[in-house]
Amino acid sequence: MIGVFDSGVGGLTVVKHILKRFNSDIIYLGDTARLPYGTKSSSTVLKYSIQSAEFLVSRGVDAIVVACNTASSIAINTLREKFSIPVFGVIEPAAKKASSFNKVCVIGTESTVSSGAYPKKIKKYKESVEIEQRACPLFVPLVESGWIDDEVTYLVAKKYLEGLKCDALILGCTHYPLLKGVISSIAGSVELIDSGEALVELLEDDDVGELFFGSGQLECYTTDSKDKFSELGKLFLSKHFNGVKLTDL
Amino acid sequence: MIGVFDSGVGGLTVVKHILKRFNSDIIYLGDTARLPYGTKSSSTVLKYSIQSAEFLVSRGVDAIVVACNTASSIAINTLREKFSIPVFGVIEPAAKKASSFNKVCVIGTESTVSSGAYPKKIKKYKESVEIEQRACPLFVPLVESGWIDDEVTYLVAKKYLEGLKCDALILGCTHYPLLKGVISSIAGSVELIDSGEALVELLEDDDVGELFFGSGQLECYTTDSKDKFSELGKLFLSKHFNGVKLTDL
Repeated sequence: MIGVFDSGVGGLTVVKHILKRFNSDIIYLGDTARLPYGTKSSSTVLKYSIQSAEFLVSRGVDAIVVACNTASSIAINTLREKFSIPVFGVIEPAAKKASSFNKVCVIGTESTVSSGAYPKKIKKYKESVEIEQRACPLFVPLVESGWIDDEVTYLVAKKYLEGLKCDALILGCTHYPLLKGVISSIAGSVELIDSGEALVELLEDDDVGELFFGSGQLECYTTDSKDKFSELGKLFLSKHFNGVKLTDL
Repeated sequence: MIGVFDSGVGGLTVVKHILKRFNSDIIYLGDTARLPYGTKSSSTVLKYSIQSAEFLVSRGVDAIVVACNTASSIAINTLREKFSIPVFGVIEPAAKKASSFNKVCVIGTESTVSSGAYPKKIKKYKESVEIEQRACPLFVPLVESGWIDDEVTYLVAKKYLEGLKCDALILGCTHYPLLKGVISSIAGSVELIDSGEALVELLEDDDVGELFFGSGQLECYTTDSKDKFSELGKLFLSKHFNGVKLTDL
């Protein structure tokens, strides 16, 4: 059983890739009562991440996937020290994939960008990569408003991505894969790196995939409205799901 | 001593009006670690509101002002039952002011709009008022991004307010007074009702203002970053302030 957590439903984009490749049995926790994490301080994100991981460990999971880029940026080392089971984040896989390029741009929440986690990790893989970061705080509320293909979203993307010059662009937030169309139309012919996709590729390469194979059961927990989780979750998982459960952290 | 709480710094627009009129001594709490409230469920908003009020009561305040429209919509009755000190919200004052008009529009967060608190209260003052509500979820992140006078904000406002026909428009969220210019330019010659301003007028009329007079001391608490609170707070209070304290709810 794999435990996956995120501040909300965004992490379901990661779940989608894991299910597709490994058909894993997953317990998913979306901390929707306290979202977003991406505008909060490191100490708050760390505290919430530990509580989320503790919840999953208490359900008996064999590994944890931190599906949230902000939580991965800030909490991954602490979580690895604190828990004896494997803890996977979404920064390392995307950083590894990006390190095969010369000029990389990272877009993410304010907290992810200011943590510097992506540049640090990319440089560890290849020192010579040129890296530019841009925070795109309005992308999350735009996606959550369902304005995926809206003129407002195009205008916002143009402002955020103007003058960008890179070979690869890391979509450093689980909401951003839904804006691939908009981002591509502004950024041009740039390789878009989806952190969920990159995680699955890394798991395959690292031969830890074994742990992930299962029968495709998905059990979802939310800390706020079950209905809203289901409604918004469809957008990210591209399928309906029932039986979301409420929990308190 | 007056206790004021909000999900974040938005309630400082209300504090501004209270300070200007009464020069009150205020303890302000911004629950920034769990903001926003406006997209969360009623039960979560109720829980957070009770915790915020309990914090203020523990500091010995003589009255509570719920500066957040969402918290006022959902929690005001419970807070009045639970605490023996006076509890003032921002819905009643704006609703009373709006009831002197024939056609009223209410804009607010999703939770405020879906609570129906404004229509219910306005109808209590005058049954015949025609009321239309519109949720404007992107206004808060736009203000928090500092995009006050930006083409994106104009475009978003146009989408939200298109076809609106009313004599008065309630700015049903503490962030919205910062967008008065944008909203006026779209809504035309409509009376804009600022809930903080309406609260101060009601306090004067109801002769409870006595409780509010003080020496203008402002003590601020936040549940997340003190620096971010100070930085963003300037935008709402239109003055610098120091010594923000961190607390946990």
